[in-house]
Amino acid sequence: MKTKKILLQESELPEKWYNIVAEMTTKPEPMIHPGTKQPLTVADLSPLFAEELAKQELNETDAWIEIPEEVRDKYKIYRPTPLVRAYGLEKALDTPAHIYFKNESVSPVGSHKLNSALPQAYYNKKEGTTNLTTETGAGQWGTALSFAAKAFGLELAVYMVKLSYEQKPYRRSLMQAWGAQVIASPSMSTKAGRTILTDKPNYQGSLGTAISEAIELAMQTPHCKYALGSVLNHVSLHQTVIGLEAEKQMEMAGEYPDIVVGCFGGGSNFSGISFPFLRHKIKGGKQTRFIAAEPRSCPKLTRGKFQYDFGDEAGYTPLIPMFTLGHNFTPAHIHAGGLRYHGAGSIVSQLLKDGLIEAVDVQQLDTFKAGILFAQTEGIIPAPESTHAIAVTVDEALKAKEEGRSKTILFNLSGHGLIDMAAYDQYLAGDLVNYEVSDDEISKNLNN
Amino acid sequence: MKTKKILLQESELPEKWYNIVAEMTTKPEPMIHPGTKQPLTVADLSPLFAEELAKQELNETDAWIEIPEEVRDKYKIYRPTPLVRAYGLEKALDTPAHIYFKNESVSPVGSHKLNSALPQAYYNKKEGTTNLTTETGAGQWGTALSFAAKAFGLELAVYMVKLSYEQKPYRRSLMQAWGAQVIASPSMSTKAGRTILTDKPNYQGSLGTAISEAIELAMQTPHCKYALGSVLNHVSLHQTVIGLEAEKQMEMAGEYPDIVVGCFGGGSNFSGISFPFLRHKIKGGKQTRFIAAEPRSCPKLTRGKFQYDFGDEAGYTPLIPMFTLGHNFTPAHIHAGGLRYHGAGSIVSQLLKDGLIEAVDVQQLDTFKAGILFAQTEGIIPAPESTHAIAVTVDEALKAKEEGRSKTILFNLSGHGLIDMAAYDQYLAGDLVNYEVSDDEISKNLNN
Repeated sequence: MKTKKILLQESELPEKWYNIVAEMTTKPEPMIHPGTKQPLTVADLSPLFAEELAKQELNETDAWIEIPEEVRDKYKIYRPTPLVRAYGLEKALDTPAHIYFKNESVSPVGSHKLNSALPQAYYNKKEGTTNLTTETGAGQWGTALSFAAKAFGLELAVYMVKLSYEQKPYRRSLMQAWGAQVIASPSMSTKAGRTILTDKPNYQGSLGTAISEAIELAMQTPHCKYALGSVLNHVSLHQTVIGLEAEKQMEMAGEYPDIVVGCFGGGSNFSGISFPFLRHKIKGGKQTRFIAAEPRSCPKLTRGKFQYDFGDEAGYTPLIPMFTLGHNFTPAHIHAGGLRYHGAGSIVSQLLKDGLIEAVDVQQLDTFKAGILFAQTEGIIPAPESTHAIAVTVDEALKAKEEGRSKTILFNLSGHGLIDMAAYDQYLAGDLVNYEVSDDEISKNLNN
Repeated sequence: MKTKKILLQESELPEKWYNIVAEMTTKPEPMIHPGTKQPLTVADLSPLFAEELAKQELNETDAWIEIPEEVRDKYKIYRPTPLVRAYGLEKALDTPAHIYFKNESVSPVGSHKLNSALPQAYYNKKEGTTNLTTETGAGQWGTALSFAAKAFGLELAVYMVKLSYEQKPYRRSLMQAWGAQVIASPSMSTKAGRTILTDKPNYQGSLGTAISEAIELAMQTPHCKYALGSVLNHVSLHQTVIGLEAEKQMEMAGEYPDIVVGCFGGGSNFSGISFPFLRHKIKGGKQTRFIAAEPRSCPKLTRGKFQYDFGDEAGYTPLIPMFTLGHNFTPAHIHAGGLRYHGAGSIVSQLLKDGLIEAVDVQQLDTFKAGILFAQTEGIIPAPESTHAIAVTVDEALKAKEEGRSKTILFNLSGHGLIDMAAYDQYLAGDLVNYEVSDDEISKNLNN
């Protein structure tokens, strides 16, 4: 019988995260303090983040950073995750391509986000933090941090993008079941929220706004820090457990990917699956293609501009060198809420600039079509975010068929869509639409 | 580092199911044809079920029945499932007990139900069936059979208990995403449904009614058979993969359970986790306690009567020797929809009568309290059904603490509750209540 799932034992859990910055030939440009206009220091970041996380954020020298035992111990709740050969999908596509996916949906919170939530909660607890704040788009990060905060004994307040708060009530319930406080954003509880609500009373929120609110609350609360689930370097660092496990598992399968695909919001799962394989490409090894799959309605990588920009709506964050649509860009109301973010992290932005990775944009209807095909052939209902990676994988598998040659494709199934069934309902009822952003809209926000 | 998850490789998947009937000293009394009053034959069952399933249903001689390769191949989508040591729960309870759970929630449909859905779809396909009908309570069985039918190329119609249809819209969406047709029951599409609706227009449905509707449709449709997700012997047979894997895994952990716990609706997951361990008890081996955890609002095992009864509301099924509350019993609207069934399968009923297993009933609020504790300590949101097993496990672990002695407890986490968050919402808001059945209510239905 053919092996479907390639499993690692807990004893094979990675002991270190991989810090790609240390090995990049061209380092990302530094993040800038908006007041001093100087490159950011650990001291600049420490009021907001646990010091160890601030150090990881700016670490350009250590390629490998040890994973604390306490974090590895919690990882064991769901890690190592399976690498799965998608025989069912291959058969349906009648493709010579070998399709593998890393199944991060087995996490109890339903996505890869727990990989960074656990260490972030751990370091904060260790340094005496009692309260955390964060934002969440689709709710994946918020649910992850809710469980992680509970696991390490921290209180948590989550600002949830209002659109998702209303579209995804089950995610709110999940966060509450794990003990977190959940506030729809924009809210009246912060200056940033009030300002936006005064200006646009019906504003459905964005990740940028929710970040502003979470930062503001953290700055005003004693022993309280902020936690972010994507974009930043330390988040990408923690997510490399995905790719490090996948590398071992691909080796067990006797294969190496020609193409690696991840969906793209701020970069956390894409970085996680890609960086450990990218390190060989950087060093002149196998020239694997790395494809970031973003929504056509939020095309920061394919149509954004590389420039310094804020990470949030209100301009509380450092200036980040990023591919961006402008920090005031409001994406359409697509169901892949986790991909509704205006910019890309600085490492991924540099890699794209240097041609080491590629990006493609995908329309909403195509992503759901791919999601249903995947569900019916592999059994798992994918998260609307993950369907972007599946759609690109399907395209590449069909190209392989046209070209009549085999190819090994690995994609990251960042999460399941069991809590997003309202979106599938709408898709099956024919009620979903595509969204396209005009050039005018993009340049308007970039010049703001 | 301590091992949390005990994993088997795909090559260690069981090759045979365990048929406990063949080894029982006192066999269950036979099912009876209601017309002829004679013990049921394969010929009686074949119009309704695939012939191979009918044979399995009545097989009293073969203790081991081979699992077809095609079924094992599909099992590999999620099996073998992990056996998990609940260190977090143990710590929170400060108990000397060792608590293990078999994690059936990793199935892509979210519960153990796929274990029987896959072979049922397989045998039907093999014998030329084109269409299947079934019923579903909470939706767990319906979602499982939806994917299984798709996997083997069958059409499926699911009668879903109206209460669940309204409480759990995501389960309906899941079934539709996998390609099934879903009808709220009672419906006007069958005589059984119309009769009940005429009598009680606001009736919220029951498993008994939904079964009647599904059977009626199957009998009237060419090349169409019926499939049931619990109660029957062949379902329990398929579910023994749970306990067979768990037995190997407990051995790897160097332990053997003193207590095995499963929640109880019709018996499928309880049988699955118990029978492989029970076979040693039957033969005079280790005298493990087996505890079926049922809702206090539907207490067929603790307060029902052992007698011949129909498996459905309308009386279309054979007469089954069962602990029952009467086939017209309407359980309260608890959220553990999968446990709202009036009777127990004939094997489990005989085992209970013979004192080989025990049963306890649990109040709704206690089950959700246990569910939240489990979620916060082990990360996984359990299905409302599974929380019954957790509540009993917690009780036994606390007894072990009082008695000051260690005990090894194994329970089956039959499914996750990600799609049942509305129930958790209500619990956290203080809106859930307990239900108690009066003696009068029970005797009224039994004498009906």
